Amino acid sequence: MDAAPVASFDLSPPSGTRDFLPDEVIARDRVIRTIKDVFERYGFGPLETPAFERIEILTGKYGDEGDKLIFKILKRGEQAATGEADYALRYDLTVPLARVVANNRHKLGAIWKRYHIAPVWRADRPAKGRFREFYQCDIDVVGAKGPIADAEVLLAMSEALVACKLETFTIKLNSRKVLRGLLEAYAIAPEHQKLTLIELDKLDKEEVPAILARLEAAGVSERSRALLQEDLATKDTAKIRARVATVPLGAEGLREVDTLAELVGTPNIVFEPFLARGLDYYTGCVFEFGAPGLGSSIASGGRYDELVGMFSNRRVPACGGSLGIERILMLLEEREEATQASTARVLVTIFDKESRVRALRTARRLREAGIATEVFVGDGELGKQLKYAASRSIPLATIVGPDEVAKQLVTIKDLRVGQQENVPDAELETAIGRL
Amino acid sequence: MDAAPVASFDLSPPSGTRDFLPDEVIARDRVIRTIKDVFERYGFGPLETPAFERIEILTGKYGDEGDKLIFKILKRGEQAATGEADYALRYDLTVPLARVVANNRHKLGAIWKRYHIAPVWRADRPAKGRFREFYQCDIDVVGAKGPIADAEVLLAMSEALVACKLETFTIKLNSRKVLRGLLEAYAIAPEHQKLTLIELDKLDKEEVPAILARLEAAGVSERSRALLQEDLATKDTAKIRARVATVPLGAEGLREVDTLAELVGTPNIVFEPFLARGLDYYTGCVFEFGAPGLGSSIASGGRYDELVGMFSNRRVPACGGSLGIERILMLLEEREEATQASTARVLVTIFDKESRVRALRTARRLREAGIATEVFVGDGELGKQLKYAASRSIPLATIVGPDEVAKQLVTIKDLRVGQQENVPDAELETAIGRL
Repeated sequence: MDAAPVASFDLSPPSGTRDFLPDEVIARDRVIRTIKDVFERYGFGPLETPAFERIEILTGKYGDEGDKLIFKILKRGEQAATGEADYALRYDLTVPLARVVANNRHKLGAIWKRYHIAPVWRADRPAKGRFREFYQCDIDVVGAKGPIADAEVLLAMSEALVACKLETFTIKLNSRKVLRGLLEAYAIAPEHQKLTLIELDKLDKEEVPAILARLEAAGVSERSRALLQEDLATKDTAKIRARVATVPLGAEGLREVDTLAELVGTPNIVFEPFLARGLDYYTGCVFEFGAPGLGSSIASGGRYDELVGMFSNRRVPACGGSLGIERILMLLEEREEATQASTARVLVTIFDKESRVRALRTARRLREAGIATEVFVGDGELGKQLKYAASRSIPLATIVGPDEVAKQLVTIKDLRVGQQENVPDAELETAIGRL
Repeated sequence: MDAAPVASFDLSPPSGTRDFLPDEVIARDRVIRTIKDVFERYGFGPLETPAFERIEILTGKYGDEGDKLIFKILKRGEQAATGEADYALRYDLTVPLARVVANNRHKLGAIWKRYHIAPVWRADRPAKGRFREFYQCDIDVVGAKGPIADAEVLLAMSEALVACKLETFTIKLNSRKVLRGLLEAYAIAPEHQKLTLIELDKLDKEEVPAILARLEAAGVSERSRALLQEDLATKDTAKIRARVATVPLGAEGLREVDTLAELVGTPNIVFEPFLARGLDYYTGCVFEFGAPGLGSSIASGGRYDELVGMFSNRRVPACGGSLGIERILMLLEEREEATQASTARVLVTIFDKESRVRALRTARRLREAGIATEVFVGDGELGKQLKYAASRSIPLATIVGPDEVAKQLVTIKDLRVGQQENVPDAELETAIGRL
């Protein structure tokens, strides 16, 4: 440092948020574009909504715990002193979807397929891999009841993961109706059903005895617990199916699961009768993409026919899913080393003050030929300029000194191998194209 | 509407913000990608910073009026009740740039070329074309003193506008040193110079007599006003140049302008000795892109050697510019009519329940062939399905009924011309490629 800092500003980004330098932005953008291209190939269109919403749109939608995590925006002008908030940063992309659907009913048509990839904000305690500003990536079909909508969502999400080179996943599939049928078949009392679902949702993180102990403490009957324990121990799908089928709602759920699996038609889809998915807004099929190396829910979703209509005063059938895009980006980042690489392929060096105009014309020619090109904009002799190119991983540099001017040549230096060659000025674009 | 709304929620986006439906997002994205591609071809790398900053990073940077327009975020948890703010939404992209430069000094190297296209937030009174959430598009070269940096910024911005098909602009060029030289040549007293610059900045919106009257009221001498009036009336560049050149600082400014014009080397660049550019942080050349049809400042920028170092406790030479991207988007929108068009080229219709699996397989084949495809996900017979395609501007639809199944054919309906043809199922991709 040249001197002590002027003020004691904390210059890091706010806790739980990140600055993304060019290398990172380029890597993230590449993934996002890949996913967008797949969604658009399926006829899903992009939506963008404001970063903040009127506060009453957001509060009361995420439970008490969720509401505490909403970033609220102070009123302005004369009302600033009240300390009250009128807006709040969006907490997810689902509530904005519901608002847009209610506000544009006639514009959007009866069926609407949208995707939305954008940051959301939660005042969560920051931790490794948990941020206060992070991207979500949602696709949803609004207005369609049938299983084809669910299948298209699943297929588009699968293909997006494959396009990101994450292809070794399994899709766990269930229906909330199967689960509710199971609870009925176990004769779990209505007042214990919600708690039981919450406990079953912890199966991938916790041991069965701990879960059963908590159910006992909550008053779930011994017989119910014995039946549940048996199915959790044997994981005998045929037996569980038979049990679910004894309850009409469960039988309907099995049909949903089977139809969807047939429509998707890929071998990596497995029936998982205890899959609950945390959020209790799901009404039909639910699914989760996972793999040992990818984490247990790199993507998930399902059918939720009661949610999108929250502002519409009508039932709006919907299904959709979320790709864990921050997780995907982290997995892909681990494969690539970050460098402060330039986007350019060529650095046009500047021999002396008199050759500046020539250098800019050379850069124009290269850019017109579609070759990404930087001109050295700093001070310093050739050695410093070539060092700059190396520090930015620019592979090629052009040099034109008095000798080259006299002979109408350009020297091209290949910094990757440390070799250089002279080419006639008129053939520069072609020569660079070859390297 | 099915019934009265459940609650009296205002469902429009917050005042001064916008929802962008798919057609608009696609059009905006296309422009943004075009601009990004140009910047990257020039070796500028993308930066992303958080939506909000620590409040002390932002306040005091935009004058009292600007500070009032900052959206502030309430503290959370136990401190929420204090009504105090600790974060604030970014107001521009320059202060975050200065923070990132100070925070990543060793990572970024001596010279850093970055672009940043992202929303900013200002609690301005909303008006036609003025929003509270809007995109800015900045490119800057940090760490380079020489005129090549200025030239590269100007060239990259020019090419970005041309790439957006806005090619009929003029670049007005000046240097703050020319202006300060002029004020000295007019013998305007030091205490009147700032006010005079502010008045000159209004020349494109106001009449000369009104400006002169205010200068008189402020106490600017009669002789000074007479000289200024003469130059404003004659606009005799040769004479003005001669006058500027009598002052050493003015002469230096003329050299800056002439060097930059030569380096840029395009005929659409004109010396405009009264161009002030509102912001007083400019220290060298300033420029403005304009054209009658495009508005007077579709883009602007200049050299500002005192700004980026605000958090670094050192002088960081810098130059850069802003493309008026919201203005560009509005100009381009006026050329195109918004429709709720799908991104898909083909709608695969569903004849009956039994043909759903076949339809999904057909869609897969088309997508694998790179053809964007929707499967109809709603309920309803063929007529309704074709109406859906028409309402989404999907040009083609495939139909497979019992006849087609028996003969291994597919009917392709071209909704643009109302014609249809049968093709062998195996030749579907090729046939669609031809249409």
